[in-house]
Amino acid sequence: MHADVVIRPALYEDLFAIVTLINDGGPDGKPRENLPSNLPDCYRESFTRILQDENTFLMVAELHGRVVGTFQLNYLICLAGKGQEDAQLEGVHVQSQSRGQGMGMQMIAWVIKHAKTRNCRRIQLTTDKKRKRAHQFYERLGFVASHEGMKLLLDICQN
Amino acid sequence: MHADVVIRPALYEDLFAIVTLINDGGPDGKPRENLPSNLPDCYRESFTRILQDENTFLMVAELHGRVVGTFQLNYLICLAGKGQEDAQLEGVHVQSQSRGQGMGMQMIAWVIKHAKTRNCRRIQLTTDKKRKRAHQFYERLGFVASHEGMKLLLDICQN
Repeated sequence: MHADVVIRPALYEDLFAIVTLINDGGPDGKPRENLPSNLPDCYRESFTRILQDENTFLMVAELHGRVVGTFQLNYLICLAGKGQEDAQLEGVHVQSQSRGQGMGMQMIAWVIKHAKTRNCRRIQLTTDKKRKRAHQFYERLGFVASHEGMKLLLDICQN
Repeated sequence: MHADVVIRPALYEDLFAIVTLINDGGPDGKPRENLPSNLPDCYRESFTRILQDENTFLMVAELHGRVVGTFQLNYLICLAGKGQEDAQLEGVHVQSQSRGQGMGMQMIAWVIKHAKTRNCRRIQLTTDKKRKRAHQFYERLGFVASHEGMKLLLDICQN
């Protein structure tokens, strides 16, 4: 465990670091694209919307002043929860050089604590079936792979 | 296809019908619990919050004046989408007597159209691995079971 890790809400000045983490964290271990050093406006616009949404939390894990991890937590209101929300975890990424040091564990421990404080029914996430190590990681934390995670990309959808 | 099916936002007067559909739609085909005819306040409170949230849509499918299906659509803002949202589909249920008649197909067609109008990147959902027919249903519509759907129930969580 890193005693020096700070998990805190993301700020505008973290944006490039977060997008780099997301971009470098593809399921095949390769960067998804070449990022321009000046990010397109769409990133700042999405980030502003996230900050304004009371049910969405974009977080970073900072170590010695550097952003080395990120995740996003969305709280979903659902009738099945009888007043309890579901916590939906998205975009969990740890910098490759910082993996295997308990950083991810600390991030998920933060999520569990936060979701319990908010009286959530459950935490849910999907991970690409190629990410075998990620499944083992979440299973060690008590997650159960009880569901199929199905996606329909709309840009290639003919429906 | 049912020409008479109407897909529309849920109203307060639909609440008992929706909760009954959710309750009767467990993965083993059995009702989850005995519902009291006077629903506990928590359902109405959750429903009020859903109505007030501009990123959450609780819908019903109505046939000849009766609610026979329901689903909930949550739009998630995400940096990875570069300004495009992900449409998260939850709580898809069709009354058992009305299955196999294209009702679910009409509901998902509505979701695809709505998500495209909102310029979403993708539609995502999880379905219990026991629901083999549901997987085939979604695969016929173009969904790919590319991900593990992992859940951590917080009431039994010891973390």
